[in-house]
Amino acid sequence: MHVTTGAIELKLPEGSNRILVKNLFLSCDPYMRKRMQPKLEGSDVDSFETGLVGEFVFISAASGAVGELVGQFAKLMGCYVVGSAGSNDKVDLLKNKLGFDDAFNYKEEPDFNVALKRYFPEGIDIYFENGGRGGMLDSVLVNMRIHGRIAVCRMILQYNLDNPEGIHNLMQLIGKRIRMEGFRVRDYYHLYSKFLETIIPQIKEGKIVHLEDVVEGLENAPTALVGLLIDKNVGEQVVVVNRE
Amino acid sequence: MHVTTGAIELKLPEGSNRILVKNLFLSCDPYMRKRMQPKLEGSDVDSFETGLVGEFVFISAASGAVGELVGQFAKLMGCYVVGSAGSNDKVDLLKNKLGFDDAFNYKEEPDFNVALKRYFPEGIDIYFENGGRGGMLDSVLVNMRIHGRIAVCRMILQYNLDNPEGIHNLMQLIGKRIRMEGFRVRDYYHLYSKFLETIIPQIKEGKIVHLEDVVEGLENAPTALVGLLIDKNVGEQVVVVNRE
Repeated sequence: MHVTTGAIELKLPEGSNRILVKNLFLSCDPYMRKRMQPKLEGSDVDSFETGLVGEFVFISAASGAVGELVGQFAKLMGCYVVGSAGSNDKVDLLKNKLGFDDAFNYKEEPDFNVALKRYFPEGIDIYFENGGRGGMLDSVLVNMRIHGRIAVCRMILQYNLDNPEGIHNLMQLIGKRIRMEGFRVRDYYHLYSKFLETIIPQIKEGKIVHLEDVVEGLENAPTALVGLLIDKNVGEQVVVVNRE
Repeated sequence: MHVTTGAIELKLPEGSNRILVKNLFLSCDPYMRKRMQPKLEGSDVDSFETGLVGEFVFISAASGAVGELVGQFAKLMGCYVVGSAGSNDKVDLLKNKLGFDDAFNYKEEPDFNVALKRYFPEGIDIYFENGGRGGMLDSVLVNMRIHGRIAVCRMILQYNLDNPEGIHNLMQLIGKRIRMEGFRVRDYYHLYSKFLETIIPQIKEGKIVHLEDVVEGLENAPTALVGLLIDKNVGEQVVVVNRE
């Protein structure tokens, strides 16, 4: 990986009426990995679910960007929310800072099916697929309730696999009449101002916490992106290009 | 397989006010195979899709019960409809008797992806999953259009597998915002009279043809059920128990 740094002078030509934009921050998202391969359309989905009421919600990769917000929204709407994450620190964060009802470290669970039965003895109504481990989705399918819904927003770990894991339990969709649907944020831009109206007061009141994982310097962006793909970040991965 | 036949006398006790029902016909359906294993809830879905208008529709196992009807409904509603089936006779039936726009014998297609691109150069809007071949669903996912819908009604061939085929292309759900949903007929019984109101005139006018694959004698029911699971039947499999 070659990273070249060097200063260039930022100046508009004399008399130009253009606007010069200096980039201060970059967001680092898993879909960027997808952009590196031309084959398939990217999967840069940051959609958020509304209207969840009083149901059992499970969120994978729950401490990453999106997952943490969806979990907090679900809590605000009265759901019982459990998240999975890849370290005990993240589990602690979900339970003690973000208000999840429970959380577990999937790396310490030898059998996802057993783990999900422990956290959801009555089954899962809504699964927010944010992590992409094939084994997890298969175990979730087995633990879904009738008329359950699966929002498919990211399948991060699969972006790096030439031969992604196969999903074996799709037959559960039939007996349980499960709806599984993919989302992309671009379909919901018309709701963005409404989203801000909803979320800004919640953030100001401290009811919603948005996490950022900040690295300094464009030269650290590649490492940050790789970290994202192996589940290292906590919250939205931001790269500080310039502080001013 | 042991099949015992023998006559019993049908008679109600003297003075009884009960009703004696003599069974004349049996329907033979794939979900019966599922009933033979206690593990998972059955998948006996005979739902029918309404509201499809002017879209590209693909139906697997299209000459079996359900598939043939769904295809004809889709045609009535102005869709372009292609079905796959397991023999050239069935393909002929779909094209020349049931009015499908096109049909192909999946057993003669070495690459489902190539086949689907040939029949759907612009992609598939609606897939009626009625056959359950993993490779077919994966190829369909690749050929779906944005906001496509997959109705999952049967996955017949997988009922007999201890280790059903894995599905590898679910990531397509995200980029294309595909909705995939399972259905069971029991959720729609309240629409049954409306269904009859709609379909009976269509049958009388010859616009909808309902196919039955009739075998004579209860002793042939096991063979009929096995035939169903290996895609031998054409239309609804009916077992004639008695003619009177």
